[in-house]
Amino acid sequence: MARHTDKVFESELKGVRSKLLTLGELVQKAIAEAVRALTERNDALADEVIDGDRQVNRLEVEIDELCFRILALRQPAASDLRFITLALKVVTDLERIGDLAVNVAESAKRLNALPPLASLDDLPRMAELAQHMLARVLDAFVDGDAVAAREVLHSDEEVDELYHQRFRRLVSSVKKQPDLAERTMHVLLATRHLERIGDHATNVAEMVIFYVEGRDVRHPGKS
Amino acid sequence: MARHTDKVFESELKGVRSKLLTLGELVQKAIAEAVRALTERNDALADEVIDGDRQVNRLEVEIDELCFRILALRQPAASDLRFITLALKVVTDLERIGDLAVNVAESAKRLNALPPLASLDDLPRMAELAQHMLARVLDAFVDGDAVAAREVLHSDEEVDELYHQRFRRLVSSVKKQPDLAERTMHVLLATRHLERIGDHATNVAEMVIFYVEGRDVRHPGKS
Repeated sequence: MARHTDKVFESELKGVRSKLLTLGELVQKAIAEAVRALTERNDALADEVIDGDRQVNRLEVEIDELCFRILALRQPAASDLRFITLALKVVTDLERIGDLAVNVAESAKRLNALPPLASLDDLPRMAELAQHMLARVLDAFVDGDAVAAREVLHSDEEVDELYHQRFRRLVSSVKKQPDLAERTMHVLLATRHLERIGDHATNVAEMVIFYVEGRDVRHPGKS
Repeated sequence: MARHTDKVFESELKGVRSKLLTLGELVQKAIAEAVRALTERNDALADEVIDGDRQVNRLEVEIDELCFRILALRQPAASDLRFITLALKVVTDLERIGDLAVNVAESAKRLNALPPLASLDDLPRMAELAQHMLARVLDAFVDGDAVAAREVLHSDEEVDELYHQRFRRLVSSVKKQPDLAERTMHVLLATRHLERIGDHATNVAEMVIFYVEGRDVRHPGKS
């Protein structure tokens, strides 16, 4: 790459970083609002999440195109190339997380059409954890910080534990009140979507650790 | 790129294509076996799916590295570059689908530890559809066939419909037999994972259409 293009190139890389963080924030907001739509029985908020997915999708396309342009025109080497190829994968996970937030919002709308259910007070905690994992792992990515990425793996254990607790509570509640089966099953699905968001954040964390340390830690303890 | 490297380059691209199809086949096999583990109450088969995920993960890393090497050494242009950047995204979805197959296998093991449940005869149909979508969309990708990719979008509607039917049946069955709540909820989750696999295949189809036609059809009808 010619030296005189260094500055332009540097600003293009910054563009990818900044758009990636924006996408991360959008998706975090979607998770938070989808869960609030559910706990506060707020259909308008659920609709905002569902409509807002267009913006998430647009941003995915923009980042993909930016990465493509950089690869085509700048032919980045070594660590910059590593960053761009990983960005393409991370963006894919972020968009899929956005879809899961939409799924939670859809569960919220179905639940809001039925009479209220008992306490859902662990869902906001799961949503907060998932948002925190996302924020942390994206910072870890742009800062090249493997230690921070590793912390995300621990948070996922907490999300899983909350999910399993909720599963057991839902089973026992539906046994006691089978007439609430439909609502209970929508809550189960919403909880599972949050757990799945944690899995995607974990996938990203594993890729970031690989990116920073050059060692493959992807899915070591999975099987 | 120097002319004398054309042949090597061409064979490297073929390598990505062929590994991508192998990964697609592995993942399809995982879906089929996870559902069989559930319908046939076969724990050994479920364990095979869970253990087999390591191979899926290894292949993801291999394809990523192959793409990285091609980008670093060959600096592909235009359609080859488009193919490589898309391959990085498709591989990410395939690995996430592999995770969902593992989730189905885990549901199978939990169900196999409990007394048998009534008919699960729609799950093999959902699994077949999901496998078919995957096979079709990966062929569409390597052949650059947007028409085939569009067909995948229609299959997803059928998967969604089967999912919604199953949801309603599960709600009414748990109302009648609340003591089977735990089993019913595991079946619900397994069904939902299959539905989610269809969503990932749809994501890939939309990317393939964009890749072939240069037009963005990603998620148009989603909101």
